[in-house]
Amino acid sequence: MTEQQQLSMCWCRYVSKAATKTQMEFDYDGPSMKTSVPGPRSQELTKQLGDIQNVGAVNFFCNYEESRGNYLVDVDGNRMLDLYTQISSIPIGYNHPALLKLMTNPHNLSTFVNRPALGILPPENFPDKISESLLSVAPSGMSRVQTMACGSCSNENAFKSMFIWYRNKERGQTAPSDQDLSTCMVNQAPGCPDLSILSFMGSFHGRTMGCLATTHSKVIHKLDIPSFDWPIAPFPRLQYPLEEFTRENAQEESRCLEEVEDLIVKWRQKGKPVAGIVVEPIQAEGGDNHASPDFFRSLRNIARKHGSAFHVDEVQTGGGTTGKFWAHEHWGMDDPADIVSFSKKLLTGGYFQRDELQPDKPYRIFNTWMGDPSKNLFLAEVLNVIHRENLLEEVTRSGKALLKGLYELQGQYPNILSRARGQGTFCAVDICDDETRNSIMLKARDKGVILGGCGDRSIRFRPALVFKEYHVHIFLNIFSDVLAQLK
Amino acid sequence: MTEQQQLSMCWCRYVSKAATKTQMEFDYDGPSMKTSVPGPRSQELTKQLGDIQNVGAVNFFCNYEESRGNYLVDVDGNRMLDLYTQISSIPIGYNHPALLKLMTNPHNLSTFVNRPALGILPPENFPDKISESLLSVAPSGMSRVQTMACGSCSNENAFKSMFIWYRNKERGQTAPSDQDLSTCMVNQAPGCPDLSILSFMGSFHGRTMGCLATTHSKVIHKLDIPSFDWPIAPFPRLQYPLEEFTRENAQEESRCLEEVEDLIVKWRQKGKPVAGIVVEPIQAEGGDNHASPDFFRSLRNIARKHGSAFHVDEVQTGGGTTGKFWAHEHWGMDDPADIVSFSKKLLTGGYFQRDELQPDKPYRIFNTWMGDPSKNLFLAEVLNVIHRENLLEEVTRSGKALLKGLYELQGQYPNILSRARGQGTFCAVDICDDETRNSIMLKARDKGVILGGCGDRSIRFRPALVFKEYHVHIFLNIFSDVLAQLK
Repeated sequence: MTEQQQLSMCWCRYVSKAATKTQMEFDYDGPSMKTSVPGPRSQELTKQLGDIQNVGAVNFFCNYEESRGNYLVDVDGNRMLDLYTQISSIPIGYNHPALLKLMTNPHNLSTFVNRPALGILPPENFPDKISESLLSVAPSGMSRVQTMACGSCSNENAFKSMFIWYRNKERGQTAPSDQDLSTCMVNQAPGCPDLSILSFMGSFHGRTMGCLATTHSKVIHKLDIPSFDWPIAPFPRLQYPLEEFTRENAQEESRCLEEVEDLIVKWRQKGKPVAGIVVEPIQAEGGDNHASPDFFRSLRNIARKHGSAFHVDEVQTGGGTTGKFWAHEHWGMDDPADIVSFSKKLLTGGYFQRDELQPDKPYRIFNTWMGDPSKNLFLAEVLNVIHRENLLEEVTRSGKALLKGLYELQGQYPNILSRARGQGTFCAVDICDDETRNSIMLKARDKGVILGGCGDRSIRFRPALVFKEYHVHIFLNIFSDVLAQLK
Repeated sequence: MTEQQQLSMCWCRYVSKAATKTQMEFDYDGPSMKTSVPGPRSQELTKQLGDIQNVGAVNFFCNYEESRGNYLVDVDGNRMLDLYTQISSIPIGYNHPALLKLMTNPHNLSTFVNRPALGILPPENFPDKISESLLSVAPSGMSRVQTMACGSCSNENAFKSMFIWYRNKERGQTAPSDQDLSTCMVNQAPGCPDLSILSFMGSFHGRTMGCLATTHSKVIHKLDIPSFDWPIAPFPRLQYPLEEFTRENAQEESRCLEEVEDLIVKWRQKGKPVAGIVVEPIQAEGGDNHASPDFFRSLRNIARKHGSAFHVDEVQTGGGTTGKFWAHEHWGMDDPADIVSFSKKLLTGGYFQRDELQPDKPYRIFNTWMGDPSKNLFLAEVLNVIHRENLLEEVTRSGKALLKGLYELQGQYPNILSRARGQGTFCAVDICDDETRNSIMLKARDKGVILGGCGDRSIRFRPALVFKEYHVHIFLNIFSDVLAQLK
């Protein structure tokens, strides 16, 4: 079968509506490719950077000044529709006018130029900026938030808060003993207690050593780094579409929940009680693995029953990409978690916590910068744009179109595609094998679409919140072409 | 004795030269106090922030827009000479015109607005910016640098690099075994090996869990957080002035070095080999503890002899504050370290490394942001200013004046002050007890001077690099008044 025949066989091409001027005036109208990627200029720069750093992960070099909206422009003049957005960390597209405008306000300059030690000398507008940014999207039941510089620092400090909370609970009204104080200085129990955090196989919570002990997605993250003997539960391996396998999936989730309880008991018996459970609402890096609201509600109850804190890691799922601001909102709970951590699309790292989790004393959770107020400035503006442009509704609409398109392609190419799944635009599809997955991603890139991989053989879709239905169609047309051309 | 008598007793007041217009046109000409600190507006804001965070460590709220040069202005209109500079992290003073100018260049805007995932999609100017900023100050023997978001992430990833390097060395040409690969996913040896980092009592290397296992300065940092069983050596407790106690100090340093070797052997026997040694050139948080160039040269040799990497943590000492750009330059070695980490005054975190320490594969040292190019932009300009204004020479000159003044005051108040010490303006003095120390710091603040504490009862001086001799005099006059008024 010729390429042409394949193309004309059965795929009805979408006719992309043009962007309406008012909504997306800063966007381009489609991909535009001049070279294969990486082009000659990118290759030259990669060689140059190779003398300074390991460049094995560098895809290509970017012209951020020319990038706009959903389109990332590279240094060879290629303009690509970006469905990966810097590992899911660009909330409202490149060079959004609202963010550029913020930079030209002279009153904002000093926030960029003078980075404060936030924990001791906050700027005058800090409480207001926190209130109008982070607190305006606080998860249910939480009115306290701590900013941090990145996702790993957010999770590390969230873990520390859970450990401190757990030990305070154990001690009751008693102050730390002299033995606590002397042993902690030399890394020994009881001052540095044998407590643990329960995590799930396939999870990703960061790469600093505390976080890394709860990360179990890829060998390359963990090999050769010392770790903690903490319990690791199986995460449900569900069948998709979820609504067609309700019974099977419920059984699988029960099996995992039982294992969670067994592990908590077992680790308590080992003398390493579980101070907290950490979980992603959708395992991202580990392969976009979903679980039902029932699963998470039960898990939250298990944590409560065993006196462990419940930490929901929304570093990748947070910020609107699932159609709600937080993925855990889909669970429908008034009291979804004790700690919710964030980073990426929120531009600043940090975590929300219930009152009881806030450490009892200053300097227990502390570092020099404790975040960066210039990022709070951007975040406040990003939240304005999300609200003003109804972006959560747009995400829901685009996400439906994207998933529908993936289902159709999966029906058409059952030997290549399977397990299409998603919530909002937080979608993924499995490819028959790792090699084909990588080949599809490279071919799509050469046609002007940037995708990301996750798990062993999944493609994950992580567009910005300004990714509209017509962008979905541009993507589907190109993706369909790539699939048609696969040998 | 009356206050007046005390004041007139024997202290010759410095006459401060006025700032010359060209050098410091953006500086104020002295402190100006309107209220005691924290004033009413700061107290109000602290109460407001208290509903959101633990505010036990908040000193006061700042008006960063009005702050200039060496002067920090608070929200009650108090203007204070700043010798602490946001925990030693403001390199060239507040609102330096060169940095403000950089913000008004429209070509720089997109660097602030579009934060890239540097490890995969670097901006076009990234290799150039790294070359003109960080590589232009690379420590001897190092041409490779990795940026990170903060000091803790820098040290965490430096540790990881040392572990990876050590295991690669152990394996030789052999690839990781299947057992390595399967065990690392569940946090067990040999995939997650029982390796250790040797650190020193009194050291501070950060607060994430890997770093925290090497931090031993204050109980409040470590209590209740699980840790690793890693070896901790004594750091020399020297007598000051160093030149008067050469023999005694050499003995003390020998004792500590012997203990280092004993610990390396002991931990190898325990099956937890020392992959790396981490040390600060001057222990800062732990109380400004110095050691001689001989000590560090021997330590570097011990590391080499035992096959451990040698990691010099310059997070607080780096950036010019000791009169050389890196404190380790005072050791006079061509090959001072395998890894040198930085943050604070460098505005971006990160570390330099020798070629052998760079991980063999991509994604082993990785995270979403891998630093922040907007900080590199500022850093390049800071380095220009340091060069143009000969700030390292200024630091040496100011540092001498500061130390001389401290020696004089120490002679005058032997019951209050002792152990004055320092290199460049990186100075400290001990106070008779913790309570008096804190009282002195508060009194100095009410008179318009911001100081920081460290260790049990030290005051540390951490002014910006634009702190001139006449600023030293302003400080000494006020400090002398405070001491005179102490009961």
